[in-house]
Amino acid sequence: MKSYFEDMPVIKYEGPDSKNPFSYKYYDAERVIKGKKMKEHLKFAMSYWHTMCAGGADPFGGVTMDRSYGETEPMAIAKAKADAAFTFMSKMGIEYFCFHDVDIAPEGTNFEETRNNFHEMVAYIEGKMKETGIKLLWGTANCFSHPRYMHGAGTACHADSFAYAASQIKNALDATIRLGGQGYVFWGGREGYETLLNTDMGFELDNMARLMHMAVAYGRNHGFTGDFYIEPKPKEPMKHQYDFDTATVLAFLRKYGLDKDFKVNIEANHATLAGHTFEHELAVARINDVFGSIDANQGDPHLGWDTDQFPTDVQSATLCMLEVIKAGGFTKGGLNFDAKVRRPSFDFEDIVYAYISGMDTFALGLIKAYEILEDGRIENFVTKRYESYTYGIGKEIVEDRATLESLEAYILEKGETKVESGRQELLESIFNTILFK
Amino acid sequence: MKSYFEDMPVIKYEGPDSKNPFSYKYYDAERVIKGKKMKEHLKFAMSYWHTMCAGGADPFGGVTMDRSYGETEPMAIAKAKADAAFTFMSKMGIEYFCFHDVDIAPEGTNFEETRNNFHEMVAYIEGKMKETGIKLLWGTANCFSHPRYMHGAGTACHADSFAYAASQIKNALDATIRLGGQGYVFWGGREGYETLLNTDMGFELDNMARLMHMAVAYGRNHGFTGDFYIEPKPKEPMKHQYDFDTATVLAFLRKYGLDKDFKVNIEANHATLAGHTFEHELAVARINDVFGSIDANQGDPHLGWDTDQFPTDVQSATLCMLEVIKAGGFTKGGLNFDAKVRRPSFDFEDIVYAYISGMDTFALGLIKAYEILEDGRIENFVTKRYESYTYGIGKEIVEDRATLESLEAYILEKGETKVESGRQELLESIFNTILFK
Amino acid sequence: MKSYFEDMPVIKYEGPDSKNPFSYKYYDAERVIKGKKMKEHLKFAMSYWHTMCAGGADPFGGVTMDRSYGETEPMAIAKAKADAAFTFMSKMGIEYFCFHDVDIAPEGTNFEETRNNFHEMVAYIEGKMKETGIKLLWGTANCFSHPRYMHGAGTACHADSFAYAASQIKNALDATIRLGGQGYVFWGGREGYETLLNTDMGFELDNMARLMHMAVAYGRNHGFTGDFYIEPKPKEPMKHQYDFDTATVLAFLRKYGLDKDFKVNIEANHATLAGHTFEHELAVARINDVFGSIDANQGDPHLGWDTDQFPTDVQSATLCMLEVIKAGGFTKGGLNFDAKVRRPSFDFEDIVYAYISGMDTFALGLIKAYEILEDGRIENFVTKRYESYTYGIGKEIVEDRATLESLEAYILEKGETKVESGRQELLESIFNTILFK
Amino acid sequence: MKSYFEDMPVIKYEGPDSKNPFSYKYYDAERVIKGKKMKEHLKFAMSYWHTMCAGGADPFGGVTMDRSYGETEPMAIAKAKADAAFTFMSKMGIEYFCFHDVDIAPEGTNFEETRNNFHEMVAYIEGKMKETGIKLLWGTANCFSHPRYMHGAGTACHADSFAYAASQIKNALDATIRLGGQGYVFWGGREGYETLLNTDMGFELDNMARLMHMAVAYGRNHGFTGDFYIEPKPKEPMKHQYDFDTATVLAFLRKYGLDKDFKVNIEANHATLAGHTFEHELAVARINDVFGSIDANQGDPHLGWDTDQFPTDVQSATLCMLEVIKAGGFTKGGLNFDAKVRRPSFDFEDIVYAYISGMDTFALGLIKAYEILEDGRIENFVTKRYESYTYGIGKEIVEDRATLESLEAYILEKGETKVESGRQELLESIFNTILFK
Repeated sequence: MKSYFEDMPVIKYEGPDSKNPFSYKYYDAERVIKGKKMKEHLKFAMSYWHTMCAGGADPFGGVTMDRSYGETEPMAIAKAKADAAFTFMSKMGIEYFCFHDVDIAPEGTNFEETRNNFHEMVAYIEGKMKETGIKLLWGTANCFSHPRYMHGAGTACHADSFAYAASQIKNALDATIRLGGQGYVFWGGREGYETLLNTDMGFELDNMARLMHMAVAYGRNHGFTGDFYIEPKPKEPMKHQYDFDTATVLAFLRKYGLDKDFKVNIEANHATLAGHTFEHELAVARINDVFGSIDANQGDPHLGWDTDQFPTDVQSATLCMLEVIKAGGFTKGGLNFDAKVRRPSFDFEDIVYAYISGMDTFALGLIKAYEILEDGRIENFVTKRYESYTYGIGKEIVEDRATLESLEAYILEKGETKVESGRQELLESIFNTILFK
Repeated sequence: MKSYFEDMPVIKYEGPDSKNPFSYKYYDAERVIKGKKMKEHLKFAMSYWHTMCAGGADPFGGVTMDRSYGETEPMAIAKAKADAAFTFMSKMGIEYFCFHDVDIAPEGTNFEETRNNFHEMVAYIEGKMKETGIKLLWGTANCFSHPRYMHGAGTACHADSFAYAASQIKNALDATIRLGGQGYVFWGGREGYETLLNTDMGFELDNMARLMHMAVAYGRNHGFTGDFYIEPKPKEPMKHQYDFDTATVLAFLRKYGLDKDFKVNIEANHATLAGHTFEHELAVARINDVFGSIDANQGDPHLGWDTDQFPTDVQSATLCMLEVIKAGGFTKGGLNFDAKVRRPSFDFEDIVYAYISGMDTFALGLIKAYEILEDGRIENFVTKRYESYTYGIGKEIVEDRATLESLEAYILEKGETKVESGRQELLESIFNTILFK
Repeated sequence: MKSYFEDMPVIKYEGPDSKNPFSYKYYDAERVIKGKKMKEHLKFAMSYWHTMCAGGADPFGGVTMDRSYGETEPMAIAKAKADAAFTFMSKMGIEYFCFHDVDIAPEGTNFEETRNNFHEMVAYIEGKMKETGIKLLWGTANCFSHPRYMHGAGTACHADSFAYAASQIKNALDATIRLGGQGYVFWGGREGYETLLNTDMGFELDNMARLMHMAVAYGRNHGFTGDFYIEPKPKEPMKHQYDFDTATVLAFLRKYGLDKDFKVNIEANHATLAGHTFEHELAVARINDVFGSIDANQGDPHLGWDTDQFPTDVQSATLCMLEVIKAGGFTKGGLNFDAKVRRPSFDFEDIVYAYISGMDTFALGLIKAYEILEDGRIENFVTKRYESYTYGIGKEIVEDRATLESLEAYILEKGETKVESGRQELLESIFNTILFK
Repeated sequence: MKSYFEDMPVIKYEGPDSKNPFSYKYYDAERVIKGKKMKEHLKFAMSYWHTMCAGGADPFGGVTMDRSYGETEPMAIAKAKADAAFTFMSKMGIEYFCFHDVDIAPEGTNFEETRNNFHEMVAYIEGKMKETGIKLLWGTANCFSHPRYMHGAGTACHADSFAYAASQIKNALDATIRLGGQGYVFWGGREGYETLLNTDMGFELDNMARLMHMAVAYGRNHGFTGDFYIEPKPKEPMKHQYDFDTATVLAFLRKYGLDKDFKVNIEANHATLAGHTFEHELAVARINDVFGSIDANQGDPHLGWDTDQFPTDVQSATLCMLEVIKAGGFTKGGLNFDAKVRRPSFDFEDIVYAYISGMDTFALGLIKAYEILEDGRIENFVTKRYESYTYGIGKEIVEDRATLESLEAYILEKGETKVESGRQELLESIFNTILFK
């Protein structure tokens, strides 16, 4: 497995009986389900940062993975990395990628040099995209790693940090537009607080909204027709992050009039850190018309930090895909793997195994979600469960013709209510039977 | 300690050196702080349910506390209970109470009888209030304990359950108005789901909003000028509860146009179950103008359920009171102890100790909060921390005159930003020094 | 579904394509796997308490399920309940059950009467067992629900509570012996503390060990040749429970010389409440030779209390069965469903669906565990991973011939070490492929 | 605050009314309490790693603190760092320190060079100790940060990693002995697993015990008369760490016959990550005679990782000091601050504020613990609570004269038991009153 994915075989679908570790067992890109190819349903994207840049360091240990791609000079590393990235995606059959500004180009000695490095690499990547047909799902700016953002970017207590973030965002937006990205993400890694003792939360949130309004204005003026996304996360690195979960983001967007331009990019592991299931967050987004894109990964229910593991939980992937289908499928968004190999999985081939594992998981999720819908027993049960709102007093309620007085009169007449079993165990049994069939 | 608080001494302030367990060590009701008596600052309220009704049962064991007050017939119990409640409050110097419909009167064999029992008891309590001068802080209806609400009340899948809840709410509102309550609470104990497999979340939330609109219409038509409150809680008894936290409630209120009539009633233990600090929830409410009332208690950070313990954490109480002061103090709301004695604290005198402990905790919190504000070091630090937004580029940002382009131009000119320490440890040290002085 | 399971069909294996809700999809009792029938591998047991007695009450609401079996007089209820239990087990093909003393017989007005009720019911159940061939897996005494145990039983601060618990245990042991049970369980529901402020932990644990020594002495003198089990649980109902997890139990057993007679009964949901996976707890028990029996259920990773749900997680069941196989399979123990239907699943048929769901889950777990072992890739990887301990310096280490000095000499000679990837993602991919094949 | 603490003032006790941030408000080193100076009671130690080395990086951002002390060459940095450390401790009046091998000296290009660097720095530090009178509390080897330990050290799957760890430990032990340290710590940062799929837990634990036996043999042969400590931690960086908590460590020590030489070093934040209170872990250690030393810090109850914050919770510190006093006070151990300033507190003076805050917190804890003991109400309550074991049936139980039969006979005679309130609320009220007096 040397020279950065050149020797890696092209990964093909071989079915579940294959013991070839370099093959898909369930993901069959061209297979048509309900009139659409699996690859169109799933729109898999590679996360540039974890896949190409992350070295496996953690708070208790250094890097285990060399990600310099045989080069030593920063721009040479950046290009070798881009070469490796596009080779990897081509071999995997992954048609989209996502990136932060700092993933693709090194910082220079000042902002101008950094900007030049960045745009040189944008051009380089544009070439790669043309060569390979691979597309950009979304772009973003990393406004959380550099010390200048230790107190936040859009919510910084120093105006200069805010200004610097705005500058990065402008360039990241320019790149996104140039590369044809249909999404632009705000993940507020330092938009939050460490202690309320030194924080003016109201002021900080007003500023955050200001930065987003600026980004929308700039993007729309420069031809960006894609979606802006906020990616919720409740905590880590900050003690509290302002974009706690989808509901919190909704409150924010509605307060500041940003709900027309913004949707959410939902990450599975962020959902669980917030105390929600992945499918809950997707459902909240769907019923509020802000479902946008997905960062697929999984956390560990016994660990309290973002483990960003490659997804292996097929039950969760199935529930996710049920929500995606109900939301009408991906339009501008897609399914990005915001996941990283474990620190002791330091070989390049581990990345390949990891993506195969994750893509097979969501392929199964897609297949099973459609089987559940086709089976119909669960959906029919739900419809029937709310039937009492289609006539009589129930109809009056949903048509806004009932009042407290009319409902009391009804109960005085009707007496005690009768309810029916929720049948959770039966539904779980049906779900599981289909899952393992 | 027999005959239900008749023999209990009047609890007076004796100061921290007193070893009399039946005395306040820090709560001195008539002491004036910043022109207001402590009792006016704190507006303590008794929770009728925990204090007068709860028997100490838990999922693994039966009741340990007899709360029948020497009676056997339901209405006689209800009256003896009311007698005990008002004796208790009078002796404690607690001037407010809060109640659910089912706390004060027994269910009858049908809704009409239940309603009659209820209004008879409302009249009885009205008499008690006149006698003692004790006031109603808020009223509410228990739409979660009865099996008819197993699938929800406002979010029930059966229209009859919805109608029944509406009937209860109508009567509880009537009682609240009659008794002069300035608040009416919605706590959605069963408004949520056990499993998404059988749930139409969007439909359920639409219905919840309908019920609240009906309540507002009815209340306003019948002279209710107080605040409606939603009390957020993330889970328990349901796997997921819709009113997860204050931010979630804000998203809901804004979506359905309920933000004019509703504020939040924030419970400390609900905040921590949602992954927030108590003061965080209060701050979110304050900066969004929905701070209403407080259910003071505390949870156990290592237990995942609502322990509803009497508050003993003075640091938390101080941070809470800082928020209350910043929000302008209580207006229509107050500080209700939604707390219960531990199961093995089954004597009536344990209730007395518990309230003393909780009231002393918040008395200390109030005193310390004002000392911190008077000291000024923390507040001054915060003001200075955001100073860069009062001139130059910062001023342009907050006055909405900056754009991504103008900010990039600024950074190209200015170069790298300089930030200053957040001084968390120094602020914590100042805070703690004042706390223990 | 009336008259308490009489009308319920016999539940048979019909395979995953069957849409008959009253059939097993994966559990095929007589199917032989590796020379043993599935029913012998799995040794399913019914939990008397949840299945026959639990009414669905929770801290926020009353019972939703009537479990009086058409009777009103306590002993008549007890007998009708036993009839229903044995009908249910017979129809389900469940060959074992487990019970607490209080599950099967009502308390009398004093201990003697209670004891008489209990032994009358033991005789009644003995008759049922003979009729049906159903066997007792284990017995236990409920020393946690009654108020007399509010401060503990074996760890009570009042000697009389200890004595009462001893009396219950004596009779429960007598019943277990009479009914041929091969296990006796201690679950310390109140053996722990609410606050260290009023607790002498060392004294309480010494007493707990005394009670267990008494039970062993009595049991062995009266012909009990089965295993004693401690069932670990970290918390709930107590703030802290002494039998936190398997490792804690091991420390206790070793301190007090109880490790010869005691093994552990591991509950899945208790494992996860302690911050462990189910399979972790099983592995700890296996490598310390205390693996005994299992309480199968599942918790909700986002809820902090014992939800005791019927198991549906096939991945977890597979990892569990891998451990059981490695431990040599069940000998005296078995797989008891310490699980309850959700509160809104109040029909008797919901119990049937729930058991089908749980049994199918573990049937799949068993099948998949053997497929993984047969496949061999994962086990072979592990063996190879530790290969360096079979020769050279590694061999010296495991044969206790190495010292710090000899190892330093080796490293001075050898230089930097080389490690290999842990291949977690590949192993997960193999595991998942087999799971869904 | 330049030139690395040279300009920092000597920190003296000025009392709670002082507004000088560079002074102790509660810690008065020479004040005598119960015949011992505060500094002897508390034995504060500086953690070399966090205080002198940590740069503030986290998984989402780079270093914010330059800790190169004006030098560029590794050994020069090491010496400048040592100078700074001893200046800092002298100015603070901290008389002990703790260190890992890698904290004080840079790695060389091979083990021999690393070892030479290390021993050169040990000699350098020995000189500093003589100059200042500052003592070593304990030493340890960092066998978790280097990639060679990605799969563990004592529990590594590769024998060479084990051998390398042994070599490091030998030298760290040598240094500890030379510097007069009375403790040697094992913190198993990588002793655990990421996934059971690739792990042989039983084999790994056997090896861990082998390494510890080697260390004991070596240490005792080379004149080490201090205590070996295991520092429990449940998780992070590993998914599961073998030394989960004190009880787990006890089970391990007893199994492998290591309980004579080992005690525990309890860290507050590790306790809370394991689901325990700090005082619980201390109490478990005390009643099992393995209380050794303390790593004082605090976590955030809403964050699931080791935040290692400077302790500010006086209630917790008081409960801790109560346990320390009951255990007979520190003998060979002491109170090490395994705490780090927050990432945005990057100035050197923030370290000073942080230590002042932490030391004042424990000074208050000590003072309040003795006040509580002097007051006597709480301790007397506990003694009285267990009184029933000093006569009659209770005495028979604790003297091992009771049996299940004799206790049943007693209950048949005696009838129902009577229990008394646990008075938790009253005890909490007393505790709090003393805390804030």
